[in-house]
Amino acid sequence: MSTAEKTFSKGLEGVIAAQTEMSFINGTEGILEYVGIAIGDLASKSSFEETVFLLWNKRLPTKPELEQFTADLRSHYTLCDEMVTQIKSCPIKAEPMHVIRSMISMCAMYDENPNENSVEAARHKSMRILAVAPAIVAAFDRHRRGLEIVKADPSLNFASNFLYMLNGEKPTDAMVRAFDICMITHADHGLNNSTFAARVVISTLSDLYSAMTAAIGSLRGPLHGGANEGVMKMLNKIDSVETAEAHVMGMIKNKERIMGFGHRVYKAKDPRASELMTLAKQLAEDTGNMDLYNKSHAIEKIMEREYASKGIYPNVDFYSATTYHCIGLKLDLFTPMFVLARIAGWAGHVIEQLEDNRLFRPTTDYIGPHNAPYTPIEKR
Amino acid sequence: MSTAEKTFSKGLEGVIAAQTEMSFINGTEGILEYVGIAIGDLASKSSFEETVFLLWNKRLPTKPELEQFTADLRSHYTLCDEMVTQIKSCPIKAEPMHVIRSMISMCAMYDENPNENSVEAARHKSMRILAVAPAIVAAFDRHRRGLEIVKADPSLNFASNFLYMLNGEKPTDAMVRAFDICMITHADHGLNNSTFAARVVISTLSDLYSAMTAAIGSLRGPLHGGANEGVMKMLNKIDSVETAEAHVMGMIKNKERIMGFGHRVYKAKDPRASELMTLAKQLAEDTGNMDLYNKSHAIEKIMEREYASKGIYPNVDFYSATTYHCIGLKLDLFTPMFVLARIAGWAGHVIEQLEDNRLFRPTTDYIGPHNAPYTPIEKR
Repeated sequence: MSTAEKTFSKGLEGVIAAQTEMSFINGTEGILEYVGIAIGDLASKSSFEETVFLLWNKRLPTKPELEQFTADLRSHYTLCDEMVTQIKSCPIKAEPMHVIRSMISMCAMYDENPNENSVEAARHKSMRILAVAPAIVAAFDRHRRGLEIVKADPSLNFASNFLYMLNGEKPTDAMVRAFDICMITHADHGLNNSTFAARVVISTLSDLYSAMTAAIGSLRGPLHGGANEGVMKMLNKIDSVETAEAHVMGMIKNKERIMGFGHRVYKAKDPRASELMTLAKQLAEDTGNMDLYNKSHAIEKIMEREYASKGIYPNVDFYSATTYHCIGLKLDLFTPMFVLARIAGWAGHVIEQLEDNRLFRPTTDYIGPHNAPYTPIEKR
Repeated sequence: MSTAEKTFSKGLEGVIAAQTEMSFINGTEGILEYVGIAIGDLASKSSFEETVFLLWNKRLPTKPELEQFTADLRSHYTLCDEMVTQIKSCPIKAEPMHVIRSMISMCAMYDENPNENSVEAARHKSMRILAVAPAIVAAFDRHRRGLEIVKADPSLNFASNFLYMLNGEKPTDAMVRAFDICMITHADHGLNNSTFAARVVISTLSDLYSAMTAAIGSLRGPLHGGANEGVMKMLNKIDSVETAEAHVMGMIKNKERIMGFGHRVYKAKDPRASELMTLAKQLAEDTGNMDLYNKSHAIEKIMEREYASKGIYPNVDFYSATTYHCIGLKLDLFTPMFVLARIAGWAGHVIEQLEDNRLFRPTTDYIGPHNAPYTPIEKR
């Protein structure tokens, strides 16, 4: 019996399950790096496309490399006609996360060789899935709103193209930049649950679509990506900055969970939250949503006063909610935005797993009976 | 830093990741029990329906309980019209596993409350998914063969109804019993990869459909459920019993993997294989496939002679291949049969996870750089 076997760590907390060269998290000090580069530097200086290249190649691209990478991505922006038909066949009342999970799963049926798992094939499929996912989200949202589906525009960057397909008009520069930063800050984050699910699934040498589908299913959970919707729901229940104090203190008294605070990993400030706070404020100003920003900021101050000594700070979901609202996204599209960004991380981890695979097959602590008889039914 | 954190066990081998009261495996002695009852007893004396009740309730049912359980299951056999349309929209060249994963995912869209996660709701949804999965498999197979879809017959048991929907005629008693035993022996097996994937996904408090979809994606991998197709492919390459020896010894010499032998968990005989061997022989006799059975048996003898001292024995996939072939299933429906059975285990584990949940969130061993600068692109 190995050392690990003796220890049952619920939720595998503290258990190392994989090696990675992508993101490094120091929760105590509030540090997040992608391939060694501080998330703050990437958020302020890089683009989502460049960040994806960094995560997949473990280094920043040269100018020609970035141009090639971007051109490849853009060449896969457009949905095939069959996928458009499939999206239009989804019931309009369906939750977008169920639609996206199902549609990414279905993409396997329109791939000539869905099960290729060479590292090269995995990179190519990852690129295609990343490129087409925004089109799926936008197409379903327009379909359910009774609007014509807007075709992708390969002259636009990832962020701009998505907002264009969603709204049918070119977004402002501030919106594009804000969205781009959201994508960068959400692109990877160690062995979070969905990334772990993707690695677990690909370790059977299944396929990219299976791994991505599993990850999307995980992300929609309220203990994971679903949390950013919870923040907005909470903010909507608070009438104004003036009543925030009473509302939040009431929630604390009733032991209700204050959404968007605390994180299993971070005991200091979530370094992604700082970037988003600055961004959220600017966007709120630009879009006439300062009331929402002020409510968020008031809640942060109350929580800091009450819990900072316990290491409870706003997490990445807290200010991404305000940001997405200001961009004009409906509540149930918040978690799908997390999908668009995290596909980068899922794909990178799947590739790392394929490069040095070992089937995930942990063991259980069996706590049931032994040697039980099969009693015939008439004697039970 | 906990004890577990210091140990990196690749693939989480030997790491306890959950508690369970469902199945117990002793790989060294070749024991498999469901809730304490030996798999051999269940295979010879129980039914799949009763086994599912056992796994979900941790005890055998009384007669009225089993009648109620069976009636509930049968009441959900029939696909809704919308799902029939969705299945017919799948390209006929698609691999059935990609179809099943996508269709189970889509079922969420036709559930009024797909995200309910109370234990009661999870049981109800599990029952529905288990009941409808055979209809999805059969409907897609008939669709791709250009045949009319056959509606479920709620007067039939699980095994019989599936074979009826697939072939459009009532199966023989031997086929039904053989299929039922395959379902029983594949229903649960500790924290195999797909079951683990289901537990990982539901731990975000996502939903039953997300968890099942993840598990199906995992199962299709050749290192997991996909292996039973590999056995059949290998058997097809061997012309006759007479050439089996030369063929297998050639494979061993070339270090090719002999499909259907060895299992991460079992170092003794896989206890499920014994049950299936008896069954496979009888079915082969009934269906005029003794040549196939004899080839399998010859391979087993060669492997026993070469590797028994190393603990390499036929696993459950080895004789299930012969069984499924004799029942008349096409090769790419072998892994889907594993899905039908294992839904029972996945559901039981998901319910156990929901009863005492803790988010799975392991950690990584980060092996990349630190404090790397963001070099401007023109200086790279």
